[in-house]
Amino acid sequence: MEENNKAVIILFSGDMDKVFAAFTIATGAAAAGMDTTLFCTFWGLKAIQKGNLTGTGLMGKMMGVMNRGGLKRLNPSRFSFGGAGRIMFTKMMNDKGVSPLSDLLKTMNELGVHLLGCKMSMDVMEIKREDLIDEVEDVVGVATFIKEAADSKIQLFI
Amino acid sequence: MEENNKAVIILFSGDMDKVFAAFTIATGAAAAGMDTTLFCTFWGLKAIQKGNLTGTGLMGKMMGVMNRGGLKRLNPSRFSFGGAGRIMFTKMMNDKGVSPLSDLLKTMNELGVHLLGCKMSMDVMEIKREDLIDEVEDVVGVATFIKEAADSKIQLFI
Amino acid sequence: MEENNKAVIILFSGDMDKVFAAFTIATGAAAAGMDTTLFCTFWGLKAIQKGNLTGTGLMGKMMGVMNRGGLKRLNPSRFSFGGAGRIMFTKMMNDKGVSPLSDLLKTMNELGVHLLGCKMSMDVMEIKREDLIDEVEDVVGVATFIKEAADSKIQLFI
Repeated sequence: MEENNKAVIILFSGDMDKVFAAFTIATGAAAAGMDTTLFCTFWGLKAIQKGNLTGTGLMGKMMGVMNRGGLKRLNPSRFSFGGAGRIMFTKMMNDKGVSPLSDLLKTMNELGVHLLGCKMSMDVMEIKREDLIDEVEDVVGVATFIKEAADSKIQLFI
Repeated sequence: MEENNKAVIILFSGDMDKVFAAFTIATGAAAAGMDTTLFCTFWGLKAIQKGNLTGTGLMGKMMGVMNRGGLKRLNPSRFSFGGAGRIMFTKMMNDKGVSPLSDLLKTMNELGVHLLGCKMSMDVMEIKREDLIDEVEDVVGVATFIKEAADSKIQLFI
Repeated sequence: MEENNKAVIILFSGDMDKVFAAFTIATGAAAAGMDTTLFCTFWGLKAIQKGNLTGTGLMGKMMGVMNRGGLKRLNPSRFSFGGAGRIMFTKMMNDKGVSPLSDLLKTMNELGVHLLGCKMSMDVMEIKREDLIDEVEDVVGVATFIKEAADSKIQLFI
């Protein structure tokens, strides 16, 4: 079976710099005409969360506070400095004319990148469909991810 | 040369959450009928170690204490809290009916996932074949990994 | 379109152990006759920097100091101990006859591995072409990376 012109990126990390890499690669792949999917799981869910507090049980709520989602709350994997790193990186990217994450999200949407949430990690972390941004196409399990990945030319775990 | 229906996952990380992702993807790929290989290297060796103390020389023994293997000793990449994070995640997964790592390991075994250890990192860290669990099929070098990966539909570095 | 006998590794991390994994896999793929590309971005640029201080603006210079490049300055992702981890790992690898990073770099060069720098992250971090080692073949954007990755048998994000 020949592979289709697809790219599948699994975004596991919620670090600002890795989310930026994932968004940039997804945008690039879609711009090159590839049918592109960004499958967000675990910490990577933060990138497609609205940013409201989440969780129903005690631990889910604790997790929701400690690990609050939303693009504006992401911190870089290095030089975090309690939030200062985020401001520094944002300013450096801005100074060089690099699109911020919110713009990349819009571009991905315009280019038809499929945003998917991982059902199992959402269950574990008590994140609901309505906690995710509207651009998310679907919430799926690992079987769907495997099917897409096996049929794609590019698969990356970020 | 056409690619075969194979999936190759290189598990480099020893973080509980990443090991969980690797085990879940490997299980999913095998359940979908793919010939699946999990190649464990560096910190990822912890996931297939028995958990005994390892090392022969001074530094190897130090490493064996600081980086002791075994599924029950893995800590999440975030919110480690000196072991409390492990208990919290395990409880959250358990509450939601998600299989623990030890069950996923059994399932992988039943589905015929090939567990491989990386010879070079085992040499460096002074981990012996008998320090690995019995389910491990073989200890191989990077050449074997490359051969399998080049012949597979899915390759992920976790 | 059939995929060519290519391997593309995106090196995002600047951690010593991950750079070691990337160099080892790239060397292995090239030794197996694959046309191999190592695309270095973000922290991964450190692996192909000369090691001089970089940056032109205030923040770029701060980044240049905090995140100084060069193979000899890389620290492992775990057990860093303010530089002691680097010495420990280097000694352990040396004791076991494993090639140091500088030797792997030479081997990659001899085997024709293409070393590429990511234009966008170099712009953001104010790293110039002349801050990179001479072995680097080109500085390219994400579009080039996508094109190569889509045409390759192995794609890994490290």
